[in-house]
Parts: sequence; structure tokens; C-alpha cells
Amino acid sequence: MGKVKVDISMSLDGFVAGPNHGLDHPLGEGGDRLHEWVYGLKSWREAHGKTGGETGPDSDVSEEHLAGVGAVVMGKGMYGGWWGDESWEGWWGDDPPFHVPVFVLTHQARGPLTKSDTTYTFVTDGIESAMRQARAAAGDKDVLVSGGGTVVQQALRAGLVDELQVHVAPVLMGDGAPLFGLLRAGQIELEPVRVVDSPKVTHLKYRVVK
Amino acid sequence: MGKVKVDISMSLDGFVAGPNHGLDHPLGEGGDRLHEWVYGLKSWREAHGKTGGETGPDSDVSEEHLAGVGAVVMGKGMYGGWWGDESWEGWWGDDPPFHVPVFVLTHQARGPLTKSDTTYTFVTDGIESAMRQARAAAGDKDVLVSGGGTVVQQALRAGLVDELQVHVAPVLMGDGAPLFGLLRAGQIELEPVRVVDSPKVTHLKYRVVK
Repeated sequence: MGKVKVDISMSLDGFVAGPNHGLDHPLGEGGDRLHEWVYGLKSWREAHGKTGGETGPDSDVSEEHLAGVGAVVMGKGMYGGWWGDESWEGWWGDDPPFHVPVFVLTHQARGPLTKSDTTYTFVTDGIESAMRQARAAAGDKDVLVSGGGTVVQQALRAGLVDELQVHVAPVLMGDGAPLFGLLRAGQIELEPVRVVDSPKVTHLKYRVVK
Repeated sequence: MGKVKVDISMSLDGFVAGPNHGLDHPLGEGGDRLHEWVYGLKSWREAHGKTGGETGPDSDVSEEHLAGVGAVVMGKGMYGGWWGDESWEGWWGDDPPFHVPVFVLTHQARGPLTKSDTTYTFVTDGIESAMRQARAAAGDKDVLVSGGGTVVQQALRAGLVDELQVHVAPVLMGDGAPLFGLLRAGQIELEPVRVVDSPKVTHLKYRVVK
């Protein structure tokens, strides 16, 4: 069985998105800056159907984590924001970059949606259920919990995460969506696995000790 | 003239001390874990009048930053907590580890206090004044803003900091004193300078762009 991995970009002051997210700012105001390190990478461009791009430590980290992923779990916000009815098909367009089954944790029941090689399944009965379905879909590969912060924390609190990788961007956001606000003291123990750094970002990988 | 440096240990979720700090827990409950990386180091032991201790990347980082320091600025909490009258002489005992003039930002006026080679000056008229006095005392050497979070943020917001080093401990604290809670979006720009990592901690150094 594969691992359950969290992999998420965070500002140095702990935010995974800027304030005032909405249709104009899917990542909140200034939230794009958390992901600047990834946009030029060869591995990211490939996942988005583009050629070319930078190689190097950031690309290696990104490639390594994408290679093993057999299913993705995400929140409603990351899928498509906190508004909209069933006709709204989310941020990711007709050719989403996931290329594996995606399980969207939400309170709004709706049927599955297929876009190119990505099928979104909307899960309304909690993180354990989403994770169980994702594990089944992933087979021997890993399940990636890709955000936002609330889903990551739910997964951590439920003891469902094996590995946590945080890409620390050199940004002080000041406000926005926090990665860790819902955890209580001593709920989670971490063991450092590896640090990779580049001029743009620092990749901190931890094993989650259960 | 030397630099103004912030140098502080932080949990991955952004806290510089645990919750419920008091006489029993100067660093808050669980707060000691943020500093575990430092207690065994040769450089730390020397500053505390002890011999022996570990060398290696963590000790190099600690030694490097102590070597250049000519004065320290800290908050009342780091000096001695948020209680007590003038008879209370703080956490640091008769032989404090600073060995340079220390400027304590507080609302309670009191005269200077000398302990061994450390003189504490209590500054009641704000961070700019504390920093001006510390700069004068430091001469060509650096001023270290050593905590807690509130003082660090006041110094950052006032544009007084040249370099920010955060020692990220592999701990999710869940609650406590945040390092960055008072900043607003876009107030501070960071430029990565260097990352040093060890199995115990990751040292992230940034230049503060003004």
C-alpha cells in the first residue's frame, strides 16, 4: 500500500492562501506568490500539458512527489471555491493537471465529473471516507492530500497522514488561510526526513509519527 | 555599523512559545521543545559558562550569530514574564548568557540592573528608542532582536530589521505565542539568504528587503 502524503506550499508565516479569495483571486490576494517557485518548472509544465521549463532541485522535488501519486484528496475551496452551484466546474478547466482520480471533500452532494483523464468524486461524509475511497483508487500508489489547510488539518488530526512536505515560500503574507490553525498542542509529532532548498523556496519533509 | 538581526526558534506552525506560560513554564507548555536543538551545543554551553557540547552545523549557525552581537533587544516576557515587581530579576539568573548590553522593552519604568557582564536597560518609550540605544551600545557590531514574537513584529513593522533567521523546529505546537500574527499583507519582503539543516532543526536565513 502506498503512503498518504501532504504536499503544500506555505508562507513563512503559515498561510496557504492569501486573504479575500474569490473568483478574481482563487488563491487569495497575493496567494500566487506562494506558488511562484512551481510555475516555471519542467515537471509542473508537463502536468499541465506544456513543454520546456526549468530543471534543478525544485523540479526534482516536484517530479518525485507527482510520480508516486495514484489519487488526490482536496477540499471544496481548492476544487472550485466556496460558492457556485453544480454547473460550476471548478478552477481546473477541461484538462486538469491531476491525471488521477480526485476526491473532493464538500458538504454539497453532486455526481462525479470527468474532465479528460481526471474524474472528480464529491465526498460528503467526511475525511475518513474520502481517504478510504482515495486509497482504494490509488492501489499501490500514494494518496496526495493537496489542500487547502482545513483538509490537511482534518487528515492530520485523524491520524491519516504518513508524510508531510511543506514548501516554505519566502513570503510574509500577514493574513489569509492558515495551514495549521485547527490543531491542538501535542496532537501530531514530526520527524524531519529531508530538506531541499533553492533560491526560491525551502522544501521541508517530515514523517508523521503516530 | 552592524546589522539588526532577528534570530528566533519557531515551531513549523509558527509559534515561538507554548500556551500558558508562567513561572512553571517560562516558554509555555511544550515550549522547551522549540529550543531542544540548542541545549546540547558547544556554543550554547560556552555562553552559559559550561564546557563540552556538540559541534556540527547547528553549533556553527549558533556560533556565527553570537559572535557578531554587540547588544540585544528583547521583550518583557523574554526578560522575566508578564508579572512581578521590581524585585523580580527575571529568568536569567546571576550569570546571564548574553554578555552584552540588553535592552528590555516594557511598560514598567525601572532603573538598570547589572548581573555579571550583562546590564539590562528597561526601555518604556517604544521599539525605535530601544533599537537606537542598542545600536549605540553595539558600536560596529550587530544588534540582535531575540524575542518574543511581539517585539520581533514591532521591529519588522518599523522597518528596523536587516536579517531574519528562523530556526524551524519539527514541532506542531497547536497553540501559544505566534511569531508573525501582527503583520499585515505585503508589509515585509524577504529574500532567501541561506538554509542550513540538521536532523533537529532547519535554519532559514532571509534578508529583509526595505
